[in-house]
Amino acid sequence: MDIDNDRQGMMLALEWAAKGMLTTSPNPRVGCIIVKDGRVIGEGHTQPPGQAHAEVQALNDAARRGNDVRGATAYVTLEPCSHFGRTPPCADTLIRAGIGKVVAALGDPNPLVGGQGFAKLRAAGIEVVSGVCEREAREMNIGFLSRMQHGKPWVRMKSAASLDGRTALHNGLSQWITSSQARDDGHWWRARACAILTGIGTVQEDDPQLNVRAIETPRQPRRVVIDSRLQIDIDARVLAGGGTWIVAAQGNADKEARLRERGAEIILLPNSHGKVDLPALMEELGRRQINELHVEAGFKLNGSLIRERCVDELLLYLAPSLLGDAQGMFDLKALDNLEGQKRLAFHDVKQIGPDLRILARFI
Amino acid sequence: MDIDNDRQGMMLALEWAAKGMLTTSPNPRVGCIIVKDGRVIGEGHTQPPGQAHAEVQALNDAARRGNDVRGATAYVTLEPCSHFGRTPPCADTLIRAGIGKVVAALGDPNPLVGGQGFAKLRAAGIEVVSGVCEREAREMNIGFLSRMQHGKPWVRMKSAASLDGRTALHNGLSQWITSSQARDDGHWWRARACAILTGIGTVQEDDPQLNVRAIETPRQPRRVVIDSRLQIDIDARVLAGGGTWIVAAQGNADKEARLRERGAEIILLPNSHGKVDLPALMEELGRRQINELHVEAGFKLNGSLIRERCVDELLLYLAPSLLGDAQGMFDLKALDNLEGQKRLAFHDVKQIGPDLRILARFI
Repeated sequence: MDIDNDRQGMMLALEWAAKGMLTTSPNPRVGCIIVKDGRVIGEGHTQPPGQAHAEVQALNDAARRGNDVRGATAYVTLEPCSHFGRTPPCADTLIRAGIGKVVAALGDPNPLVGGQGFAKLRAAGIEVVSGVCEREAREMNIGFLSRMQHGKPWVRMKSAASLDGRTALHNGLSQWITSSQARDDGHWWRARACAILTGIGTVQEDDPQLNVRAIETPRQPRRVVIDSRLQIDIDARVLAGGGTWIVAAQGNADKEARLRERGAEIILLPNSHGKVDLPALMEELGRRQINELHVEAGFKLNGSLIRERCVDELLLYLAPSLLGDAQGMFDLKALDNLEGQKRLAFHDVKQIGPDLRILARFI
Repeated sequence: MDIDNDRQGMMLALEWAAKGMLTTSPNPRVGCIIVKDGRVIGEGHTQPPGQAHAEVQALNDAARRGNDVRGATAYVTLEPCSHFGRTPPCADTLIRAGIGKVVAALGDPNPLVGGQGFAKLRAAGIEVVSGVCEREAREMNIGFLSRMQHGKPWVRMKSAASLDGRTALHNGLSQWITSSQARDDGHWWRARACAILTGIGTVQEDDPQLNVRAIETPRQPRRVVIDSRLQIDIDARVLAGGGTWIVAAQGNADKEARLRERGAEIILLPNSHGKVDLPALMEELGRRQINELHVEAGFKLNGSLIRERCVDELLLYLAPSLLGDAQGMFDLKALDNLEGQKRLAFHDVKQIGPDLRILARFI
């Protein structure tokens, strides 16, 4: 494949970035390709945390293929890092390799360090272009960007409902409203998230495993349960294998000890009403390096999260059916005027099997 | 434009058919193009009732342009008629003109007469091909086909709701849930229908005109109001200009007389519960040559029509907003199991301004 222009080169780098969709977190998904005389001579993407970044992977790939990268152009979907983290700075590595030009999609979103990678490259005489396919690159790392810029994860709330917006019958029956294709697709969104969040209501009603099963993934997301009064059953399946975070509003030394024995961690975050402080939880999850938070909760917690402005995006599967008088999606209070409505914008709509998948963002 | 194959020719004929979208009813929308040596030499579409059919229009167009149609191929989106209606049979006209070949999308849907047009053409030595772009041609005349084959109109129910399926607040406020673009689009669907149906509840609450205003149309659809007990206000705007059909379950000589003075016609169709017999109404509307029936009604009548299996298709505009606890779209009883859900299939999904337009068909 020949690269004729920067946009084409960056789209290929983004394809490489996407290969890290399920594995790089909490690091961003980055892709890098190296182009010389219009020919792609090296390709790579960020490996799991602690392992090589995309730039190093691409340089190694070029070396392995016997290609000389001196004077070549590196297309990279995020500004090369300039600091020592778990790996040495990529900007230095590119300079040492003799790269002639760097085309980036996006500057480093961390406002404290943004631009230093570019500055280092320019100081070494390397031409730098930034902003190519910036929109696509932002989408790729929407959670990492949210955490860097706002200190909070990108919160994506999943729901599945009938076309008239109902998630379950009044007797609680809800299985199979949407198709197996929609459920598989939903697991892909689970898999790309750093963590999956639910509430004690869902745990008590459905006893979910809250993991990724419908698709292959090398990494299971963290599980988070909001359980104000630590009511969770010690045998709940969401605790299996350990590592689950239980977020409570009031402690209980005995229950906490038993939960810790199950490998869970208890996070106490009460608000003044004796419930979990949801906005504070989002900041805490940001501190804990959660980029994308996938919410699969019930009517009540969904409503609370939306009302407290903790949700960025709805991931909605609509089945082509009508259920009539039944459970709605979100517990939102009745309004007296339309100014009170929660406004969103449609971001993406796609048919998944017989169902419709809608991504809509709060504005 | 050169025509290289039958599909290309028929797609052009369908474009011509679409020019009659708002005007041909109760006749079908038909387009015809005449092709000789790959060149289009005549084009036309069905004119309003009593005027020329598509085939005659295309032959006249060819003559006006000085083109010799002998031996040419006619692409026509519906089997040419073989009977004397308001105009002479098109099959005879094509034979007399010396057309060499006829390519049709669809046979005459009337099971009593279907195939006779083709038979007449073949008996005259004309080659006939049928079934080219049949699916597209069926969509174009979905209402005419429904009436010919089932004796009932194609019933399209329009609703506009928030993403959580709510049409109005509990206090009745419902204006501006969807955008002006969605409302204009909705008027286009009104304009293509033979009739617009609503219920007395909507008439009493909103006093709608129930006509086409947002787009230009040379023909206003018939207005139909379901009003079991003849409660309609004699000054209701839906009566303006006359011609409105009022469907009742019980007569009232005095009120009927006053309504007739306003140009309305009263249709009595009671069922055994003292309500309007909705399935019988659909058959009556079929007898009255209604091809596409556009329903814009409220929660209750919508629910009744769906429960009594009178609806073929939902035309749903979803706004990117959440209203929470508020009025739903359809008054359907609570279910005890999911087998009772009304099943549909998505037919078309499109973004209209900020809103989503969903066409879904009952299966």
